[in-house]
Amino acid sequence: MQLYDSKLAPNPRRVRMFMAEKGIDCDTVQVDIIQGENLSDDFLAINPRGVLPTLVLDDGTVLDESVAICRYFEELEPQPPLMGTDPVSKAQVEARQRHMEFDGLMGAAEAFRNAFPGFANRGLAGNAGTVDAVPALVERGRNTVVRFYERLNEALAESEFVAGDAFTIADITALCTIDFAAGAARVPIPDGCENVKRWHAAVSARPSAAA
Amino acid sequence: MQLYDSKLAPNPRRVRMFMAEKGIDCDTVQVDIIQGENLSDDFLAINPRGVLPTLVLDDGTVLDESVAICRYFEELEPQPPLMGTDPVSKAQVEARQRHMEFDGLMGAAEAFRNAFPGFANRGLAGNAGTVDAVPALVERGRNTVVRFYERLNEALAESEFVAGDAFTIADITALCTIDFAAGAARVPIPDGCENVKRWHAAVSARPSAAA
Repeated sequence: MQLYDSKLAPNPRRVRMFMAEKGIDCDTVQVDIIQGENLSDDFLAINPRGVLPTLVLDDGTVLDESVAICRYFEELEPQPPLMGTDPVSKAQVEARQRHMEFDGLMGAAEAFRNAFPGFANRGLAGNAGTVDAVPALVERGRNTVVRFYERLNEALAESEFVAGDAFTIADITALCTIDFAAGAARVPIPDGCENVKRWHAAVSARPSAAA
Repeated sequence: MQLYDSKLAPNPRRVRMFMAEKGIDCDTVQVDIIQGENLSDDFLAINPRGVLPTLVLDDGTVLDESVAICRYFEELEPQPPLMGTDPVSKAQVEARQRHMEFDGLMGAAEAFRNAFPGFANRGLAGNAGTVDAVPALVERGRNTVVRFYERLNEALAESEFVAGDAFTIADITALCTIDFAAGAARVPIPDGCENVKRWHAAVSARPSAAA
């Protein structure tokens, strides 16, 4: 089993952190997205979509999409459960995970990708050909991230973790979103979002956060 | 159990079709997205994100995000399995489902939303406040849909269904994407994508497609 990884990007970190919470280890291969190694012939022969992370199983099966790779590990090693434990909690964790992704990570990615000079002709992730950046998406993405922080702050007034009382994949997506938003997209946690700050400090202190 | 639904939008159709495949029925409430009923105080009191579909369980639990709602029904009624049956197939179905969503449905939504006059100030779905449409996203979205058709055509040369030999949630997302892309976003299946056309005819003939 081999994980095609990038230390610079938020999505591979989601999988590394998930694996670390489960105590799963595997060989990794670093792929430099900034230099376009994910769009090289060599990598496209492995995954024609050109995205990271990509997991290749020992029998050659290729899996991409962070959440799908996490699903594989959740099924393989159910403990500790990170995707819910019964019909309602599984659905709630999945909903919250997607809220973090759609309401947060996508906004941060939009803000970063359309502002970063190296991606001026790579306006969409992966193997999408030449796609011009759209400058109007920088501000749109930043505004999305601010809304994300405000809503997350309200939610974390009600519960210890993003999807309730237990740490789950939704917390992983949220942490990777925030660290990417605060760094690459330059939208740090606003003053006043004290619940987010409390939660961020606690989750950042988990050993898996360094994976 | 009550499903807040919209007959005009692709995401609620995903859930209706999933439920029909499982033989699950429930009360539905139509919410008119075009008229902005999903952003009314009444609906935001139910789901502050303002998105459809939204499922409210008998105990008051609120679930949104199509895939999360489908997960609930998959757990509740495992037969027929629509999300895989073992660790690898569960991950593969999830990956393929997300490919349909990220590589297809999002492009179609981008093309439609930024061209439709009624959404000139609703550039993002749900409760995102006033967000201007971005005209450059219309062509970008249409190009994404064309790439989606071409890749899906290649994949369907290898397998009967989107994620292999069995009908799954990935087929549901693909069908709802294509019918929305061909209609609202005006990007029909291109000539030459004969595998997509064969598959589309077969899947459209399932009783659940009319749900």
